[in-house]
Amino acid sequence: MEDMWKKRTERISWRDFRIMEGFWKKRQERNRQVTLPTIYEFFQDTGRMDSMKGLYKPDPTGKDILRDRANGKEEGVFLPGGEIISFQLSELNGEELEMDPNLVPRPHPYWDSDVAKWIEGASYALLHEPNPEVEKQIDKIVEAYEKLQGEDGYVNTYFTFVEPGKRFTNIHEKHELYCAGHMTEAAVAYYESTGKDRYLKLMCRYIDYIDRVIGPEEGKLHAYPGHQELELALVKLYEVTKEPRYLRLAEYFINERGKQPYYFDIECAREGRNPNQPTGKGFGLRDGMPQGPFAHFQAHLPVREQKDAAGHAVRLMYQCCAMADVAARTGDESLKKACRDLWDNVTLEKMYITGGVGAEAHGERFSFSYQLPNEQAYNETCAAIGLAMWAARMLQLENHRKYGDVLERALYNGIISGVSQDGKNFFYANHLECMPAVYEDRVERQTRMFPVRQGDFPVSCCPPNLARFTESITGYAMTQREDTLFLHLYLDMEGKISVRGQQVGLRVQTLYPDEGNVFLRVTPEEKEVRFTLALRIPQWCQGVKITICGEKISTQVAEDGYVYLDRSWKQGEELGLFLEMRPFLLEANPRVRMDCGKVSIQCGPFIYCLEEADNGTELFDICLDADTRLERLYDPELLGGTSCIVAKAKRRVREDWQGCLYRQAGSRYQDCDIRAIPYYLWSNRRIGEMVVWIRYR
Amino acid sequence: MEDMWKKRTERISWRDFRIMEGFWKKRQERNRQVTLPTIYEFFQDTGRMDSMKGLYKPDPTGKDILRDRANGKEEGVFLPGGEIISFQLSELNGEELEMDPNLVPRPHPYWDSDVAKWIEGASYALLHEPNPEVEKQIDKIVEAYEKLQGEDGYVNTYFTFVEPGKRFTNIHEKHELYCAGHMTEAAVAYYESTGKDRYLKLMCRYIDYIDRVIGPEEGKLHAYPGHQELELALVKLYEVTKEPRYLRLAEYFINERGKQPYYFDIECAREGRNPNQPTGKGFGLRDGMPQGPFAHFQAHLPVREQKDAAGHAVRLMYQCCAMADVAARTGDESLKKACRDLWDNVTLEKMYITGGVGAEAHGERFSFSYQLPNEQAYNETCAAIGLAMWAARMLQLENHRKYGDVLERALYNGIISGVSQDGKNFFYANHLECMPAVYEDRVERQTRMFPVRQGDFPVSCCPPNLARFTESITGYAMTQREDTLFLHLYLDMEGKISVRGQQVGLRVQTLYPDEGNVFLRVTPEEKEVRFTLALRIPQWCQGVKITICGEKISTQVAEDGYVYLDRSWKQGEELGLFLEMRPFLLEANPRVRMDCGKVSIQCGPFIYCLEEADNGTELFDICLDADTRLERLYDPELLGGTSCIVAKAKRRVREDWQGCLYRQAGSRYQDCDIRAIPYYLWSNRRIGEMVVWIRYR
Repeated sequence: MEDMWKKRTERISWRDFRIMEGFWKKRQERNRQVTLPTIYEFFQDTGRMDSMKGLYKPDPTGKDILRDRANGKEEGVFLPGGEIISFQLSELNGEELEMDPNLVPRPHPYWDSDVAKWIEGASYALLHEPNPEVEKQIDKIVEAYEKLQGEDGYVNTYFTFVEPGKRFTNIHEKHELYCAGHMTEAAVAYYESTGKDRYLKLMCRYIDYIDRVIGPEEGKLHAYPGHQELELALVKLYEVTKEPRYLRLAEYFINERGKQPYYFDIECAREGRNPNQPTGKGFGLRDGMPQGPFAHFQAHLPVREQKDAAGHAVRLMYQCCAMADVAARTGDESLKKACRDLWDNVTLEKMYITGGVGAEAHGERFSFSYQLPNEQAYNETCAAIGLAMWAARMLQLENHRKYGDVLERALYNGIISGVSQDGKNFFYANHLECMPAVYEDRVERQTRMFPVRQGDFPVSCCPPNLARFTESITGYAMTQREDTLFLHLYLDMEGKISVRGQQVGLRVQTLYPDEGNVFLRVTPEEKEVRFTLALRIPQWCQGVKITICGEKISTQVAEDGYVYLDRSWKQGEELGLFLEMRPFLLEANPRVRMDCGKVSIQCGPFIYCLEEADNGTELFDICLDADTRLERLYDPELLGGTSCIVAKAKRRVREDWQGCLYRQAGSRYQDCDIRAIPYYLWSNRRIGEMVVWIRYR
Repeated sequence: MEDMWKKRTERISWRDFRIMEGFWKKRQERNRQVTLPTIYEFFQDTGRMDSMKGLYKPDPTGKDILRDRANGKEEGVFLPGGEIISFQLSELNGEELEMDPNLVPRPHPYWDSDVAKWIEGASYALLHEPNPEVEKQIDKIVEAYEKLQGEDGYVNTYFTFVEPGKRFTNIHEKHELYCAGHMTEAAVAYYESTGKDRYLKLMCRYIDYIDRVIGPEEGKLHAYPGHQELELALVKLYEVTKEPRYLRLAEYFINERGKQPYYFDIECAREGRNPNQPTGKGFGLRDGMPQGPFAHFQAHLPVREQKDAAGHAVRLMYQCCAMADVAARTGDESLKKACRDLWDNVTLEKMYITGGVGAEAHGERFSFSYQLPNEQAYNETCAAIGLAMWAARMLQLENHRKYGDVLERALYNGIISGVSQDGKNFFYANHLECMPAVYEDRVERQTRMFPVRQGDFPVSCCPPNLARFTESITGYAMTQREDTLFLHLYLDMEGKISVRGQQVGLRVQTLYPDEGNVFLRVTPEEKEVRFTLALRIPQWCQGVKITICGEKISTQVAEDGYVYLDRSWKQGEELGLFLEMRPFLLEANPRVRMDCGKVSIQCGPFIYCLEEADNGTELFDICLDADTRLERLYDPELLGGTSCIVAKAKRRVREDWQGCLYRQAGSRYQDCDIRAIPYYLWSNRRIGEMVVWIRYR
C-alpha cells in the first residue's frame, strides 16, 4: 500500500469549485442573506466588532464586570432531567444589570476568534458572490487590527486593553494562541478570496513574533496553545506563503504538547497561579480528569501516546486536524498512526449516530467509551464541524470510505442541525432526544445548552463556525493524488481540476442527499484527458450502478469503498452514478446501553427522527419491529421541502393507566402511522418531543 | 364512610410488640451488634459525641474551617455518566488538610440531629435488649446537654459555640428547629424505653422556650422550620406529655408555612441577608425552583395548596407525616385532603418501583412527574424512610391497602437497600441501575452519591435514620380503631393489644417476605375476646386463603384491600393466612419513558434486580419476554440466605460487533439463564453492573 502514497494527496480547494444548485445552494443563499448578516449584527451589538479599536476603558464602578458576565460564557452542567445549573448566572442573581449604555463592553479573551470566524465565512462567500459592503466591513476591521498591532507584531485585543502587560502569561486558559489561529485562518481566506494581503501580512508579522517567542530554542517559551487551533491555521498559512517556519512551528506545537514537566505547570509556577484553581470558571483543573492532569486540554500525554479521546471535544478535533495536516506534509509515520488510533477510538466508541462528538456537557468533553446518552447529549456543533474537518484531512493520509462516511454523517446530521431553517437561531448542544419535562417547567432557566434554538449566543463559537463551514463546503468534496481524482461528497457543483497539465472542467449535478442519482460531466481543455475518477460508495448504499453516456458499465467497489474509473474522459461525456438509497433500521453496538432495544432510521446520509409535530406526544412508546416497512417520500411543503420516512408502527394502548404507576406487564399495542424527518430539521416547528432512537420489538 | 372515623385510629406502638424471629430478627441483631456501635464510633471519631461539651474554640489559623469542610457535606450534582461534581471539594483541591490533631472539630448545624437519631435508635433497642453501657453513653450525652442548656431552655450546640448570639436568625437554612425535632424524638424514645425523664424534661423546657418565642402572637417570630421535622416530633411529645400546647405549635408550623409574605424573606430582610444567595452551598435560592420561591423548603405555598410534590424530598416527607399526625388528632378535613392530594401525586407520579422518592441529586429533590431516571436516581435512603413514616400515618386517617402497599414497597426495597449486609456500609443514594462506566474510571472521585456503599458518612442522616427505623419496625405493623385491629405488615413478632378492656396477646409467626404464609395466635386474658381482625391483602398477591385452626374459611377482600374477620377469638386459636406469592413482571406507566420497553421482576414485596456477579456484564442486553417462566428459589447460601428468581432469558449475540459502532438492525439473540436477587441486596459482593428494569420484547 505504502508506495501508493509517495506523492501527496491534496484537497481540492473550496476556491476551485462552487455550489450551483440543490441542497447546498439553498443553505449557502440563506447563509449569505441571513446568517452572516445576523452574526455581524449580533457581534456589533455586543461590542465585538469594535473591541479591537481600543474604546474600552475599565469602568471604575465595576459595572463593566457585570456586563462582562452577562455577555460571558455561562458555564454550566447538565443535570438529570435536563436542568442546567449556571454557576455564573447564579452569582448574578438579584443584582440588577443596570449598566451605563455608554460603557464600552469589556473585550473577552475569545472575541478576536469570533470576529475572525465571521471574516473567514464572509470571505469565502465573497469569492462567488462579491459584496462591496461586506468587503468594506472586513477592511475596517483589518484597519483597526493594523492600528492595534504592536511594533513587534503582537496583536490581541484582550491582552492589549484588559490585561495589558500580561501577554503569554496564561496561554493555558486565555485563548491567546487560539485567537491567533482563527485570525490566521481568516486572513488566509480573505487573501485567497479577494487577493488583498494586508490582513495576511499583518498575521504573518504576528506569527513571526510568536515564532520568535515560542519554540524549542533556549530563551523561548516551550509552550503550546491552551486551546488547539493555531496549529492547523499555521499549516494553512504555510500553504499560502510556502514559508517553512510556519509548518515547523505547527509541528513544534504538536510535538511539544503533553511533555513532562507540563508547560502549564511551568507557566502556573512562573506566574504564581495555583494550577488546581483555574482563574476562570470550571474546567481548567489540573487534576480534574481521570486520564491525567490537563487532559481537558489534551496536554496530559504527548499526542502520539493519546489513544483514548479525552477532554474538550473541539480542542481534540482541531488538534487531530493539525496532526493529520502535518503528517501529510512531513510523512511522519508515528504521527499518522496516532491519527488513526484516535480516529478509531472516536468513531468506533465515542461518536453519536449523528456524527456528534463530546457527549458530556460538563467540560464540553468526551465521555467514556460507549457513554452516549441521548437526552443529555452535549455534542457541540463546533465539535461535529471539527470531526468533519478532521475526516477531510484523514483523506490526505489514506483513502478509505470510512472517512468519507463519517464526514457525511456529521455533515448531514450533527453539523447542519446547528442552525434553524430561518438561519437565525442556533444549537450549541445537539441532543438526540427531547422530552417536555426538560423544558416545560424550566424554560425560563434556559441557557445555550437547552434544546431550544437560540437567537442570541453570548459564546459565539458555533454560529460563525457553521457559517464558514457552509461557505467552504466544496473544499471537503474532493482530493487528488497525481492523476486520480477522489470524489468524496456528492454536491451539485462546478469547477476545475488540473490533470496532466490540463485544466479540466467538472460539473456535478445531483439532488443528493434527497436522492442518490449523481451526474458528472467532464470538460477537458483538449479533446480528452486520461485520469482516474474514484467515487466513494457510501456504506449505507444498497446497490450501485454507473453509466457513461447512458451505457451501464461494470463496476467493482474496491476494498477502500471506492469505485475507480481509469479512462480517457472526452468533452461532454456524462457519467451517471446511481446510489440505491432505501430507508433502513440501524442498531447500535450493544455496549451503547442507552440504545439497547432501540433502532434509528437512516436513508442515504440522513438520520431521521420522530418529532411531536408529526407524531404526537410520548414518542418513547412508539415501537418499530423487524417487519416495519419504511417508505421514503419527498414532501415539497414540509420544512421547505424535504425527504421524510413514513411507516406503520405500534404504540401502547394507554387509556387504562389512570391512577396507576406500576402494574403487571401485558399492555396491548395498537397500530399507528409515523412520519420521521431528517434529524437536522428538528426543532423548526413548535417546541416538542423528539427521539432519534426508537423502541424496537 | 365518614362516621366510621369518628373514633380515632391509632398506631400500635413499637413498645407493644417485639420482633421474635425471621427476616427482621436478623436485621435487628445486626443493627444492635454492628450498625449502632459503628455509628457511635464514627460520631465519636468525628467529634459529634463531644460537640455539645463546649470544647470547640475557633482556631485562629483557620484550620478548623478546613476540617469543617473536609468533614462537611459535599454538595454535588450528578452529571450524565454518573459523575459527581463536588463544589466544596474543588475548593479544597491542592490545599493540604494538615490540621492540628488537638483541635476540636467545629460543630455543624446538623450534628445535634445526628446524635439524636443515634440516641433514638439505641433507645428503641434498649427496651427489648437492655445494655447498661449504651445507657451510660446516652446519659452522658444528656448530661452534657443539660450543662449546655441555657436558663431560658435554649439548647443547640452550633449556635452556642460557633455562632453565639445568632439563635433564630437563620431558621431558613441552619437546621436549628430540625435539630430540636430530632432531639425531641430521641428524648421521647429514651423516656419510653427506660422511663428516665431527664432528657424529656430538658426538651420540654426547650420546646416551651420555642413556644414562647415563635407563634402567632404579636411580638413572636411568625416562623416555621427551614427543614421540617420538629412538627412531627411535637406530636410525639404531645402524645407522651398530653400537653396541648405542643400539638398547637405543630399545627401552627403547618398552617403558617408558605404564607405570604414569606417568613424566610422577612428573616433575610431583618438579618441583612440576600435571599437569593444562600450562606451555605447551593440549594437555598429563593428563586431556584420552578414551583416558586422557597419550594426547596416546601414554603412556596400554604401546605393545603401544595398539590405538586416539590423540593427537598426528606423535608416533604417529614412535613406530610406531621400533616397527617395533626389531621388525625384535630380532624381537620382540609388538611386530610392535602395529605391525600400529595400522597397521590407522590405515589402515582414520582415514586420509583423500589419506593424511592426524590429523583434529583441536585437539591435531593423531587423531579417532574414521571421523571424517574434509573442510573441517576438519587432516592435518598432517608426519603424512603420518610415515605414509610408517612404511609403509616396515612393509615391513621383512613384504612386502605394502598398505604400498606407503598409502606411495604419502600420497606423491603428502597429503605433496607441503604445498609450493607455487614451492617457497616451505607447508601445515601439508591440507584436503580449501575454501569461500570459510572465508577471504573472515576472511583477516586467517589462521594457519598456514588453507587458504592460507604463506610464513612460525613453527612450522617441516613445511617442513624436506618438504625432507628429498624428498631421501631413493629410500630409500623398495626393500627387499631376501637375493636378493629388492622394488621398492615406481616412481621414475626409478639406483643399485646388492648381490646374491650382486656390485654390480648398476639403472636405472629412467618417467614415473610421470603414466603407468604403467616400464622397468628390470639391469647386473650379471659377465655375469649371479640374483635375484628383486618388483614391487608397486598396488591401483588395472586390468591389468598385463610384458615382458623386449620379449617379454611371463606374470605372476601373488601374494597379497601383488607379481609375483615369479626369473631370471638379463643385462647390458642391459630389463624393461618396464605398469601400466594409468585414472581411476575411489572411494567411502568408509559409516561415513565425511562422504563418504556422494560419490565422489572417482583415477587411478594421484593423487587428483584440483575447483578453482574450472577449474570455477567452488559446486563442491558438481556431481554425477557411475555412467555418468560420465572421461578422463585430460596438459596440459603446466597447473601446470608435469600429468595432469588431464576429464568430463561435472551441476550444479543455479540461476537461480530468488532470495529462497528452502528449497523443495520438484525442482531441474533441466544438463550441465557439469569438469576435475579432482591434489589436491597445489591452491591454486597464485588462492584459491578446492576439493573432493575430489564429489556422486554
